[in-house]
Amino acid sequence: MKLDSDAISDLDERFRALFINSLSGFKSANLVGTQNKQGNMNLSIVSSVFHLGAHPPLIGMIMRPHTVRRDTLENILETGYYTLNHVNEHILKQAHQTSARYEANQSEFEQVGLTPICQPNITAPFVRESQLKIGVKLVETQTLKVNNTELVIGEIIWVDVADGCVSEDGYIDIGQLGTVAVSSLDCYHQPNKIGRLSYAKPDRPTRFIEE
Amino acid sequence: MKLDSDAISDLDERFRALFINSLSGFKSANLVGTQNKQGNMNLSIVSSVFHLGAHPPLIGMIMRPHTVRRDTLENILETGYYTLNHVNEHILKQAHQTSARYEANQSEFEQVGLTPICQPNITAPFVRESQLKIGVKLVETQTLKVNNTELVIGEIIWVDVADGCVSEDGYIDIGQLGTVAVSSLDCYHQPNKIGRLSYAKPDRPTRFIEE
Repeated sequence: MKLDSDAISDLDERFRALFINSLSGFKSANLVGTQNKQGNMNLSIVSSVFHLGAHPPLIGMIMRPHTVRRDTLENILETGYYTLNHVNEHILKQAHQTSARYEANQSEFEQVGLTPICQPNITAPFVRESQLKIGVKLVETQTLKVNNTELVIGEIIWVDVADGCVSEDGYIDIGQLGTVAVSSLDCYHQPNKIGRLSYAKPDRPTRFIEE
Repeated sequence: MKLDSDAISDLDERFRALFINSLSGFKSANLVGTQNKQGNMNLSIVSSVFHLGAHPPLIGMIMRPHTVRRDTLENILETGYYTLNHVNEHILKQAHQTSARYEANQSEFEQVGLTPICQPNITAPFVRESQLKIGVKLVETQTLKVNNTELVIGEIIWVDVADGCVSEDGYIDIGQLGTVAVSSLDCYHQPNKIGRLSYAKPDRPTRFIEE
């Protein structure tokens, strides 16, 4: 199937959404935990979290006003904090269910059956059932003029991960944690490790350092 | 393992790079094809491509000046076009090897053994061996002040994907294409499909629509 600009533009809206969302490749699956000043909690699944830098430790996220609950973005702006929690295979259905449009006074934690836990100095709830929890302090948001999505940039200020999954060199085996990957809008995957490849140099062929 | 801001900041530099790069979750694996005005071609692997919108069809990419060849960004700015090509299991080692620092006059296509192919009106080479090829027209770049990375936003103007992998509703089975996922800096994964989940509604439990 070969499509040019006109053919893409002519696609049925729902077809185009699933098709274009497939193109970037595999995506991360995270639950974003937030609360407002009154302490009302929100939880929403996102596949748009991406690495932005290791030093300082920064993480980016795209929020689309039409598909992500506004509550989440409003809470982040209100408190300046949010949490990211890896979705694993055991909480997959609950995590996906957070994308339903619940009433403003309903917490997704209660509605889908996940447990909020707190951490001093971070005014946002973590998901107890997640095996990798990240506390994030908002650095900045900006509206991308090209399509009015929000780019949210945060600094990683807290990490909670099972010891046994962190290698001596810092690599975290997120497959071992049960973390899933997303493709398109609604498909989930359990990645099998192929291996780690050596640091590439021009005069040396790439080889597996761990399989 | 629990780490706060100070503990993260105290980590050894290489440990921190692998550790922080693991946190966002699974990442896409793409080869970026570019050329300069003289027609010299470049190819580099990136794990920072992300979906930005379906209508108009937009795709984002973060380029870190220290880890990605400057040639790629300079070529994109020079011609206004680039290609994204899914990395599959059969070309994994070649794809990873493109991250070696070859001389400016060496094409990574030749050095690693991948084949450039062209498409009218897109002044950037595609990778023949990739099963999903995307032609992109540059929309804008901006330097993120927070850490001087470059955000590159492009419009998808061409897609070439095997027919049999596109569902009737537009979902592309990228696992069937052999597309791999990345974690941290150097680990590759072959995702196994768990299934597609139903559109979430408050009064209906999430269920698999395809397994």
